[in-house]
Amino acid sequence: MEFDLIHRHFATPFSALAQANGGTVIAGIGDDCAALRPAANHVLYVSTDTLVESVHFFTTDVPAVVGWKSLVSNLSDLAACGANPLGFTLNLSLPHVEEAWLASFSSGLLEAAAQYNCPLVGGDTTSAGTNLLKTISITVFGQAVGTHTGFHRSLARADDEVWVSGTPGLARLGLLLEYQCRGQLDRCCEPSSLQRVEALLGVLPEALKNSACQALQRPLPRLELGQRLHGVARACLDLSDGLSGDLLHITKASNLRAVLSLTALQALWLRKWPELSEHIDADSLLETLVFTTLEGGDDFELCWTCPSGQRAAKVAAGVAQSCVGKLEAGEGVWLMQHQDSEPIRLESRSYVHFSQGLT
Amino acid sequence: MEFDLIHRHFATPFSALAQANGGTVIAGIGDDCAALRPAANHVLYVSTDTLVESVHFFTTDVPAVVGWKSLVSNLSDLAACGANPLGFTLNLSLPHVEEAWLASFSSGLLEAAAQYNCPLVGGDTTSAGTNLLKTISITVFGQAVGTHTGFHRSLARADDEVWVSGTPGLARLGLLLEYQCRGQLDRCCEPSSLQRVEALLGVLPEALKNSACQALQRPLPRLELGQRLHGVARACLDLSDGLSGDLLHITKASNLRAVLSLTALQALWLRKWPELSEHIDADSLLETLVFTTLEGGDDFELCWTCPSGQRAAKVAAGVAQSCVGKLEAGEGVWLMQHQDSEPIRLESRSYVHFSQGLT
Repeated sequence: MEFDLIHRHFATPFSALAQANGGTVIAGIGDDCAALRPAANHVLYVSTDTLVESVHFFTTDVPAVVGWKSLVSNLSDLAACGANPLGFTLNLSLPHVEEAWLASFSSGLLEAAAQYNCPLVGGDTTSAGTNLLKTISITVFGQAVGTHTGFHRSLARADDEVWVSGTPGLARLGLLLEYQCRGQLDRCCEPSSLQRVEALLGVLPEALKNSACQALQRPLPRLELGQRLHGVARACLDLSDGLSGDLLHITKASNLRAVLSLTALQALWLRKWPELSEHIDADSLLETLVFTTLEGGDDFELCWTCPSGQRAAKVAAGVAQSCVGKLEAGEGVWLMQHQDSEPIRLESRSYVHFSQGLT
Repeated sequence: MEFDLIHRHFATPFSALAQANGGTVIAGIGDDCAALRPAANHVLYVSTDTLVESVHFFTTDVPAVVGWKSLVSNLSDLAACGANPLGFTLNLSLPHVEEAWLASFSSGLLEAAAQYNCPLVGGDTTSAGTNLLKTISITVFGQAVGTHTGFHRSLARADDEVWVSGTPGLARLGLLLEYQCRGQLDRCCEPSSLQRVEALLGVLPEALKNSACQALQRPLPRLELGQRLHGVARACLDLSDGLSGDLLHITKASNLRAVLSLTALQALWLRKWPELSEHIDADSLLETLVFTTLEGGDDFELCWTCPSGQRAAKVAAGVAQSCVGKLEAGEGVWLMQHQDSEPIRLESRSYVHFSQGLT
């Protein structure tokens, strides 16, 4: 949800409404999920997303991949709240009925639904009128057990460690490879970094390429990890917009600054590509890897903060987890390049819709 | 949701999924709302709708009216299930940011939200890419108290009476007036009935005109009535597609036929327009009124069935209610023109999207 636009037009009466409704609403606009408490000991989580053809997915994308990702991106929001899926609704606005597209799209969508026990419970399919692009909206519902009411972004504290699952940025690497295939690498790279990115992609091992394409085309929602973070994490979100951009949400809500460790981020990549350390250009390649992927989203890995020194509370959930930074007094997201150097501030260039209209 | 398309592509694994999810799903695709039972004694209702500019609303419509109706059409689905609103999500796909449109749209939307205690809890606003038409998706959540699990369409029984609230078709009358204003009456009338409809609109009293425009532009969700129907109604739905079309859903799901009484339907209109009975063309005008409005939707009045002879169970809810027919063995929706005549079968021409693609 684009904050400025939404807050300007839709958010003002929220607190009044939340109160009017018997205090049912615990969290509304602004977190990964809304949280409602319809009954004691029961928290309902809701998340919704719209995907527009050519804006959020390529017209040439395999429809089954679009279907899988449409649901997974919403399931990932539930994961970031530590909630379990209950079901989802689907709204499709279609220029015309394309049986082949629908068959493929639904196969990917329903495969994710089956895999994560999240049944399609309703929806609406309408003609798009003279619109030529498909529009897909999905709303997912989930619940958390007991008294868990989510990991709000404002709950982070100074001295918290910043943890991530998997290798954030891996899907971005997949996207770079896809653009390279299309001969359009310049469309998702700054001109100044184009040459370095081309050099990087030229030496990527096949296994890492496959892993990056997998992360892009078939991301996994970290639902099990989200469950295990109950009682461990303070703030948590999913990396749909990239580490630097998403972490900024936590720092803003908690009035803190995040300092990421370049060494820790490099270690994530070395775990995926151990031979890199022996490469003659290892330092330069690693730097390119970290910087080009810091702002890349669509990973759906989780990022959370927790009190430092509790590494024993680290949770096993079939996915690697790493401490990549810490929170402290201040604002913004920073990167510490060396142990003793001053951190540099990262400007977020996470994907913003309507950027011209809003800024 | 368009049944054929949805069932072809999305519905097959539903029952399996519902079971997989621990029996949480009580009702899925096909009713006004999906119903989930996330916890004992708690039923969650979900309904969702997509509105596309030029398909579901006029580009020239007052945006506040579009906002009001967008939410009310979903609240009406909750009403038809006897559920109370908890909150809703909003997905907007916009060709560009139009501050004036957004300000008006949100004022109407949030007015309905405030009036019916249904806070906006989240959403997504995206660029529509090269699409030129706005797309609005709303998903609403509600709950019912105690053990009430909705009024399923399949629960109607032979000999049930068919009841309606208000004056179904009033919004259709408003639509006819609006098309007349635009000089486009032929767009929503059969050529064979155009002359009679023009004659009817020419003699409509101002009060009824106002009432019809009100029904079209500011329909009310019958939430209180829906609550009061607990223990009274068997099957219930809201008249979003018109009496003849919506009643067909009940008859199909319950394997029965509905026989509407022309006399009872005429009585509804005479209640709104008592002087009509003294008009020289009273019979012809009344017939035109009934037939042109039978297929008109967007009223959001409720239609329900209940055991006959229990008129004492009629519920007071600040809205007139009338018995307009009965159910019996057979199929389809029929109209009895006189006490002793054979009923005639009504063909539903309720609005169907993609009609060319689906049939």
